[in-house]
Amino acid sequence: MREHPAFSRLIDEVQKVGRLDSALRLLGWDQETLMPAGAAAGRAAAIGELTEVVHRRSTSKELGETIAAAEAALPGVADPRAAALLREVKRAYDRKRKVPPELAEEIARTSSLALQAWKEARAKSEYRIFRPFLEKMFALRRREAEAIGGAADLYDVLLDEYEPGCRGRDIETYAAFVKPVLVSLLGEIEPRAARAKKNGFLTGHFEQEIQERFARRVITDLGFDFDRGRVDISTHPFCSGIGPPGDVRLTTRYSESEFTVSLFGLIHEAGHGLYEQGLDGDWCETPLGHAVSMGIHESQSRLWENIVGRGRAFWTYYLPVLEESYPEKLAGVGLDSFLRAINGVRASLIRVEADEVTYNLHILLRFELERALLSGTLPVADLPAAWNEKMKETVGIVPRRDAEGCLQDIHWSFGAIGYFPTYFLGNLYAAQLYEAAARAIPDLEGGIARGEFRPLRDWLGEQVHKRGAEYPAQELCRHVTGRALDPGVFARYLTEKMRRIHAA
Amino acid sequence: MREHPAFSRLIDEVQKVGRLDSALRLLGWDQETLMPAGAAAGRAAAIGELTEVVHRRSTSKELGETIAAAEAALPGVADPRAAALLREVKRAYDRKRKVPPELAEEIARTSSLALQAWKEARAKSEYRIFRPFLEKMFALRRREAEAIGGAADLYDVLLDEYEPGCRGRDIETYAAFVKPVLVSLLGEIEPRAARAKKNGFLTGHFEQEIQERFARRVITDLGFDFDRGRVDISTHPFCSGIGPPGDVRLTTRYSESEFTVSLFGLIHEAGHGLYEQGLDGDWCETPLGHAVSMGIHESQSRLWENIVGRGRAFWTYYLPVLEESYPEKLAGVGLDSFLRAINGVRASLIRVEADEVTYNLHILLRFELERALLSGTLPVADLPAAWNEKMKETVGIVPRRDAEGCLQDIHWSFGAIGYFPTYFLGNLYAAQLYEAAARAIPDLEGGIARGEFRPLRDWLGEQVHKRGAEYPAQELCRHVTGRALDPGVFARYLTEKMRRIHAA
Repeated sequence: MREHPAFSRLIDEVQKVGRLDSALRLLGWDQETLMPAGAAAGRAAAIGELTEVVHRRSTSKELGETIAAAEAALPGVADPRAAALLREVKRAYDRKRKVPPELAEEIARTSSLALQAWKEARAKSEYRIFRPFLEKMFALRRREAEAIGGAADLYDVLLDEYEPGCRGRDIETYAAFVKPVLVSLLGEIEPRAARAKKNGFLTGHFEQEIQERFARRVITDLGFDFDRGRVDISTHPFCSGIGPPGDVRLTTRYSESEFTVSLFGLIHEAGHGLYEQGLDGDWCETPLGHAVSMGIHESQSRLWENIVGRGRAFWTYYLPVLEESYPEKLAGVGLDSFLRAINGVRASLIRVEADEVTYNLHILLRFELERALLSGTLPVADLPAAWNEKMKETVGIVPRRDAEGCLQDIHWSFGAIGYFPTYFLGNLYAAQLYEAAARAIPDLEGGIARGEFRPLRDWLGEQVHKRGAEYPAQELCRHVTGRALDPGVFARYLTEKMRRIHAA
Repeated sequence: MREHPAFSRLIDEVQKVGRLDSALRLLGWDQETLMPAGAAAGRAAAIGELTEVVHRRSTSKELGETIAAAEAALPGVADPRAAALLREVKRAYDRKRKVPPELAEEIARTSSLALQAWKEARAKSEYRIFRPFLEKMFALRRREAEAIGGAADLYDVLLDEYEPGCRGRDIETYAAFVKPVLVSLLGEIEPRAARAKKNGFLTGHFEQEIQERFARRVITDLGFDFDRGRVDISTHPFCSGIGPPGDVRLTTRYSESEFTVSLFGLIHEAGHGLYEQGLDGDWCETPLGHAVSMGIHESQSRLWENIVGRGRAFWTYYLPVLEESYPEKLAGVGLDSFLRAINGVRASLIRVEADEVTYNLHILLRFELERALLSGTLPVADLPAAWNEKMKETVGIVPRRDAEGCLQDIHWSFGAIGYFPTYFLGNLYAAQLYEAAARAIPDLEGGIARGEFRPLRDWLGEQVHKRGAEYPAQELCRHVTGRALDPGVFARYLTEKMRRIHAA
């Protein structure tokens, strides 16, 4: 499609803006990993300045004209991906153009203030410190959604930013099916998991260096390419596609008293990283070389972390290796106990520490609450009470402090409203993609049990990563798995897995 | 001065461009330290894109108008630094505005090609690979100098970029005094140094971790602040003021067979780093919070590396500490032998490995050659022969391969013509500044021998660092030391030091 001047111009400008954005991603990555503390103010100013440049370029009248010219030329372009590229570029441009610059600026400013307030509020477990900022943030994003969506449902407009094409109604439908399954599964499995003998072998002292060596070996085996990426340390683990597919960086943190947190955290981030490293370099910094949605992104991390990484096949291969690293802790533990230990099921308060069964309950609680907060049916002042009530109703326990309740997540503080459901979608997509992979790859689990990860990685690469945003997420799912997203696949996967592992 | 709207506007815009430039510095730093190899192409594109943005902003008509408005308002501004700020902003703006964008772009493109060619040429020691690129680079920078300087001497125009206010004639005058002193000192000291017993204790096996610990301790003692900086590893050591004074990064490399290379390298870079960390944060990203010249910058690195770091007082304090790190190698060596070993004097081929006596001879050779190459009196084709002849004449030895001769330095490949003399100036300024410090600080050397570096650091901070570019370099020198740059100070310092250390 580059032979068409209108498209060549469009791709060129989109890539230029993307490169500036990639500089911004490096500034952000460095801030979270290596930056000395004294650099904070200067860095914030630099990020602010470059953000403004990127914003101006990605909302310029000239870009609008370039898009219009490509649109006019589209009928003459044979490559079907031209339409996809144009669709995504236009979507992003239209969204941004509709937001008045003053509003965008106010949201950015409020984000940084609200983030500070949230940190303090969480540390002191005092909701009233955070509340005025949260009120303002919901009000601002409501205005933003109105500016973008006109008459559309406000929540849908925000969700669409992270998961294009998905509606709040869709999440509701999936949730209506999945939630009762999870609640009942929790009731069934939790007592069995609790009866199982204590898992002393997961706690104790695990030297960071040994953890690092093992974790790096694992993600190298999975296919994370260190010639095109790095692993560093940060307070909150993340994956940053600074310049995918050639520059993809993961972070992790180590706890020497518990090795599974860091290990599964890193496998999770490596799942994101494999997606970013699998993007098509010929289309870098364009929608065709870019992840399609946050839900699909999360499906890649959850697939590797949970379906593969907490599975029997995986540990058939790795438990003997891990035993060599920690012979005193792990000798004689056996695969069954080990799997039970890393797949514990237990009602708990903190989302990021939740197991596979309760995790989605935490997410759906946030989805329901943020939707009500945005529409105004739930006043921001009533959030703590509503949170606790819903916790009681779904997970069955109630936080004693807001720090362990409605103050635990960072997301709303910087305006990420409509983001949580993508975690839920990630779990659903992961199960359905893995099921399709298992149909396509002969003896998939047998291979994993021999440490052969390449067939799965290559299949995901071909089916998902390489395609970028060619198809919207839901279409991609149909294209790859043969049918629309079906929450039943996830429900079956999890029920069978948990019953097998925690057999009475 | 910020209360004057015209100055407030000027400072604001200069800082905004500076912040974008700071992002560019991070991209460059990361490229040399941590970036995975696969990121090279994407990074080059991102740097290119952001460079263009910075260039456009720093040559915009609007900036020109803002400068003109500040100029008109200047008579009403009481703060004398307003004139200095304006002078420096205007100087940089005028220079950049005079270079046609196509020429600037061609220089950038040629730089990157010439750098590649230079690497290959040096690896194979084949000058003919580099020659056409070198010819082009000299031709391009000649055109640039003509565009900027009109009738002025072309070399002066280029030198002025790195050392504002300094002329080729000045370097010639200093050189005429210093060169014969150095040649004669080399003749006097080299045989004595050679007669001294072999310094086996400087070579052998020195574990990187122990080297690191010692080197970090030293630069922390000198005052390098790790809350506002970092040390990482790179092939070629450098200091990058990413966001001074709060974000200043040094790099080093370790050789386990030789520990002095890395130690003195890091002290050198820390000298640069102390300058950057000592800049005035209230004026960051403006000329008043920016190093005044490359010569003054180099004076800070050479002062700490050579005058302090290779001096008797310094090792009176540190030799016992170093002995604890390497007891087997260093026990019983004694201060005199140690000082002789780290202050060896020997005619050698490679500039970056040269001692204090021969170093400036290497620099002056490059100064003479680049001046002749630029004016055209020396054809680029004849460089290898001219280089070898001058080496014979000044240092007394001749390289057998161009890799050890005219291909050894990276500078010309990326267009840094007129840069070498700033190394020479740095040595001269260092000696004169240190002499002034010794007058101002009671018992300076005695303090250093007790590990007290703060008086010297604070003095340099007050006298040099904090002032930024308030005074041009030569004026700063007069202001701080009471007189113009006097090469006699350096000549005396070095002669006395070498005679004392290598006493017959």
